[in-house]
Amino acid sequence: MTESNFPQPPKHLSTEEFRQHGHALIDWIADYWDRVEDFRVVSDATPGSIREQLPTAAPEVGEPFEDLIRDLDDIVMPGITHWQHPSWFAFFPANASPPSVLAELVSAGLGVQGMLWSTSPAATEIESHVLDWLVDLLDLPAYWKTTEQGGGVLQMSASDSTHTALVVARHQATNRGVQPGSMVAYASTQTHSSIQKGATVAGYGHVRLIDVDGQQAMNIEALQSAVEEDKANGLSPVFVAASLGTTGTTGVDPIEAMGAICKEHDLWLHVDAAYAGNAMICPEFRHYQAGLELVDSYTFNPHKWLMVNFDCSVFYVADRGPLIDCLSILPPYLKNEASASGAVIDYRDWHVPLGRRFRALKLWWVIRSYGAEGLREMIRYHVALTQQLADRLDRDPRFEIVAPHPFALVCFRCTESDEATSRLIEAVNKVGSVAWTGSELDGRPMIRVSIGQRSTEQSHVDALWDLIDEHA
Amino acid sequence: MTESNFPQPPKHLSTEEFRQHGHALIDWIADYWDRVEDFRVVSDATPGSIREQLPTAAPEVGEPFEDLIRDLDDIVMPGITHWQHPSWFAFFPANASPPSVLAELVSAGLGVQGMLWSTSPAATEIESHVLDWLVDLLDLPAYWKTTEQGGGVLQMSASDSTHTALVVARHQATNRGVQPGSMVAYASTQTHSSIQKGATVAGYGHVRLIDVDGQQAMNIEALQSAVEEDKANGLSPVFVAASLGTTGTTGVDPIEAMGAICKEHDLWLHVDAAYAGNAMICPEFRHYQAGLELVDSYTFNPHKWLMVNFDCSVFYVADRGPLIDCLSILPPYLKNEASASGAVIDYRDWHVPLGRRFRALKLWWVIRSYGAEGLREMIRYHVALTQQLADRLDRDPRFEIVAPHPFALVCFRCTESDEATSRLIEAVNKVGSVAWTGSELDGRPMIRVSIGQRSTEQSHVDALWDLIDEHA
Repeated sequence: MTESNFPQPPKHLSTEEFRQHGHALIDWIADYWDRVEDFRVVSDATPGSIREQLPTAAPEVGEPFEDLIRDLDDIVMPGITHWQHPSWFAFFPANASPPSVLAELVSAGLGVQGMLWSTSPAATEIESHVLDWLVDLLDLPAYWKTTEQGGGVLQMSASDSTHTALVVARHQATNRGVQPGSMVAYASTQTHSSIQKGATVAGYGHVRLIDVDGQQAMNIEALQSAVEEDKANGLSPVFVAASLGTTGTTGVDPIEAMGAICKEHDLWLHVDAAYAGNAMICPEFRHYQAGLELVDSYTFNPHKWLMVNFDCSVFYVADRGPLIDCLSILPPYLKNEASASGAVIDYRDWHVPLGRRFRALKLWWVIRSYGAEGLREMIRYHVALTQQLADRLDRDPRFEIVAPHPFALVCFRCTESDEATSRLIEAVNKVGSVAWTGSELDGRPMIRVSIGQRSTEQSHVDALWDLIDEHA
Repeated sequence: MTESNFPQPPKHLSTEEFRQHGHALIDWIADYWDRVEDFRVVSDATPGSIREQLPTAAPEVGEPFEDLIRDLDDIVMPGITHWQHPSWFAFFPANASPPSVLAELVSAGLGVQGMLWSTSPAATEIESHVLDWLVDLLDLPAYWKTTEQGGGVLQMSASDSTHTALVVARHQATNRGVQPGSMVAYASTQTHSSIQKGATVAGYGHVRLIDVDGQQAMNIEALQSAVEEDKANGLSPVFVAASLGTTGTTGVDPIEAMGAICKEHDLWLHVDAAYAGNAMICPEFRHYQAGLELVDSYTFNPHKWLMVNFDCSVFYVADRGPLIDCLSILPPYLKNEASASGAVIDYRDWHVPLGRRFRALKLWWVIRSYGAEGLREMIRYHVALTQQLADRLDRDPRFEIVAPHPFALVCFRCTESDEATSRLIEAVNKVGSVAWTGSELDGRPMIRVSIGQRSTEQSHVDALWDLIDEHA
């Protein structure tokens, strides 16, 4: 190949252009946060309305960066549902914060891939260290730390964490000669769908959804009976999921009593604390997680309610041995001195994916920026706003609260009729200035109000109450 | 609760402080890219050396943001292995680019969670649209588009994509009454470890690693025999993985011939093109993927070699029906009009996790910013640099190239002895100004040189050659 026809690299955005557009986009985000209340919370885009504005084929020639920013405003924004809106009361929050977003930027700029300790020691060690901090902050058993026999790892979502727990439990059972097709996983009827999905993905033959009591907590006698009945029928109970805050109503399963059954029958006990685990940073909520010394794994999502932007799910195991035993495979191109020494953690052995980005940076920055006290303040403020709203609902004969509301979610319905509830769900969502979630409990419609955005204040909840009052 | 003791929200970084620190960090990243060559490529941190600089407990009170940036320089940077260094020749690249990093920033700032179409229509529609663009850009079968019967979805890593394919294939086989314990997945001995790991995680009873020929491609007769032998022994062949560019040497399996065997025996054929799939944007490489009309699923990682920062793995299925059938679960709190209409895609049904961030933004911005031509230029430049280095190695009697090198990876060893190869691996890595990967082929040491960083130029490869020449 002569010099003249040797390929040339493409033209990149220069460092100067990166600075220029980067500064503009920092301001764009700050402006967005300042004006987010001007938007409808839920996009009113119709199916296909975004795509139809995009050219059929990718551009052959690069476009000016200004065009990308223009389309961000003109095409993207009308199709955005504003999870960061202070009147976001839907689902659970996915709250974020300035230090988290800045850490995500730095992580992308560094562009490290932390599959092994050696491929960026700081990424692994900061992750281990901060997750050990959280063991203390949430008052989890000390032996769950990476410096002890357990350990934490960041995953993308609680679904991934739960699936991983299911796989390790299945692997152990398979080693005892049990066929996946005969394995049973147990959860309550109110458990998040990720348990059922994870069990399907992991190949469990059976998922048993156990009834709840009036507190939306798993009926412990029903669990005991189901396990015994399955055993009597030749099936193999393997896995039990306890919810610390169900998605439907934030019901709390009796972890300690479930743990006793799991010990008796040698079952893996997993705690799905995706949402409410964040509240455990406040001592006054920790009685809800009594019994953790009986637990094998635990997941919670700082990306839900701890101001770490999505994705950032924490997965703890009480003993990392079975996890690594199940998931470690060492091809020759990944061999290295540090791994061989056994002195380091290679997080690729803690989950399904091999590659991983430096997600711990944002968790570290959020904790340091707010301090534990700042995080507790946020949780307590959201819970107080929720209890205040619950008081209003409780005092008003038009409404009926349908489940306990220990955290920052309250579920209610209209006393008049189910139709009134359904009408209220639609009417308030139609206004556009708030978003909440219509759901069902015991086959009847109910309304979920989840309070957890970083910028949500008293005034936003008051405005929601006014809407409820007006449309009920 | 009286007004005076009602909890107050924590003090957040103000918008002005966000702007100030955001601008500073944009400059910090630009400066980092400008000075990245001043760093040792591979961190020389020793195990524990990062952690020991961190306080034992999380701070109770928030710290000034300046302290976080200070520790970024003082504590984090010495523990960073610089994947964005132009002399990064290790593993495969994880290259990034200015538009990608800026899109990651915007995605974090918007903080949307795109589990359902309705939770941010733009996130879903741009993802579908851009992945349809890539079907054309890579000349994949047109029916893989979301507008046809197939479709693409972004996952975190090729390991996730491959695992998903394994699960869907297992699910179909289970529906036919096959037990996972009797299922067999096939891949070549040179296939990425994610196949073996994915099959373990998905519960396959058996993984059969098939021999390769002198071209590092799967021996097709050996595959045929293995499938027939397994069937004769009462096992159930289910899944075959073809590598389009093995991790060891970028070997290319014969997709078309494998497809014929898969059709004959009704097996799922998955193509792992994690690295080399990116090269398919150039027509001259597409003969390597002949036979795609026989394929059920395909994965490639724009986060490896298309300047989209980690994570961004693409997963295509030829028919989305079985995927959604396997992975869709609909709890009441996720019900919504758009989903019920069937007119939209809900990507939560396309993978294990429920939540998902707006990753398509960076893929969209990279393609638009460079244009297809710019992406082809980058691929061709890296391949040309690699072929030039291969020529030098080939002409020098001290070295022996051990495998075909169709893309931008060349593998070689020292002709003198295996000890000489091992010494060379160590000697060059010790210098610190470059990084490459020592691996093994046929039980003997070899050296992998992977050329794929955005800022790698002729001069960096020349400097690598000088080091090889000096230390051999």
